[in-house]
Amino acid sequence: MKLYDYAPSGNGYKVRLLLAHLGLPYERIEVDSNAGETRTPAFLEMNANAKIPTVVLDDGTVLPESNAILYYFAEGTPYLPDKRIDRAQALRWMFFEQYSHEPYIAVLRNWLHHPDSITPEQQARVPDLPRRGAHALEVMERQLAAEPYFAAGRYTIADIALYAYTHVAGEGGFDLKKYPAILAWIGRVEAQPGHVPLDRV
Amino acid sequence: MKLYDYAPSGNGYKVRLLLAHLGLPYERIEVDSNAGETRTPAFLEMNANAKIPTVVLDDGTVLPESNAILYYFAEGTPYLPDKRIDRAQALRWMFFEQYSHEPYIAVLRNWLHHPDSITPEQQARVPDLPRRGAHALEVMERQLAAEPYFAAGRYTIADIALYAYTHVAGEGGFDLKKYPAILAWIGRVEAQPGHVPLDRV
Repeated sequence: MKLYDYAPSGNGYKVRLLLAHLGLPYERIEVDSNAGETRTPAFLEMNANAKIPTVVLDDGTVLPESNAILYYFAEGTPYLPDKRIDRAQALRWMFFEQYSHEPYIAVLRNWLHHPDSITPEQQARVPDLPRRGAHALEVMERQLAAEPYFAAGRYTIADIALYAYTHVAGEGGFDLKKYPAILAWIGRVEAQPGHVPLDRV
Repeated sequence: MKLYDYAPSGNGYKVRLLLAHLGLPYERIEVDSNAGETRTPAFLEMNANAKIPTVVLDDGTVLPESNAILYYFAEGTPYLPDKRIDRAQALRWMFFEQYSHEPYIAVLRNWLHHPDSITPEQQARVPDLPRRGAHALEVMERQLAAEPYFAAGRYTIADIALYAYTHVAGEGGFDLKKYPAILAWIGRVEAQPGHVPLDRV
């Protein structure tokens, strides 16, 4: 299978990390979304939403959306919980990640890495992002002060989804030292067998 | 079980619509998120992320996030696809809904309903939302010009998730007449057995 990916992307990294845990081989194709490479006619023909990661399975099936890709590869493995309520809780945290976490924590990191590409509309949002991102980290801190992981009491795709941008939140100006339970959880995630860092592509 | 809900919310409506299809009884508790009622100490104790819908199961388990709630109740019913790849595609569209659709189409509708509550930061974003919302509708139109539904060739929770805010996109200033495949799909969704409208709470 093929993984359309962008090396600095935490969303792409989620997929790389799960595939490393599972030992599944794939062909990685680098697509610089900051340089417009997801908006070519060929890419839009594959994924009209113009986003990486996008997976193409061996039968040609196209599957975009990082967290849907995680779910697909985790089914039938220990990385998806066995119990119905635990599967729902894993997804609950993955939807939290995409709605209440990534738009602030990942976006601020990306803009700080590429300050020249920020539009005036985006510039107007910058002052609000640290507060909203800190709220997401506080919600995580509360969960992780009570439980070692996000769902089922063990490491699952919910942890992979949230680890991807949380562990590099400092690159967006967030101070993780304020969140001791998150820091301890980051250590548990990085101790999992088969862990690979974000920058190993 | 209890459903913490807000009548005008499309996210709350998703859950009401699936529970109506399934004929599952519940106690609905109205929480006006626009009036700050999700930020009381009692609500935050239940869901630190301060959002409706939030479900409390009979055993006290708390499950937030509209699309995770849909997944939970759909498991084992025809509303979740049977095949692994189709389940992943349903989730792919549900993550699309939360990341690329709701933040523009639902947010613009909410702001137009409550213009007095918009902050200056939000006001700065208003000019960008129509373009981004229209892009989401174009991605949907492309899918629905080729397929009758979003996953598995039939009505699933992916359709429920996307129908909730799409069918009232006009209230946010979007002109659905530009999207004939979406309009035809709205008709198919509304013809499903057990369908209930957004305003019947």
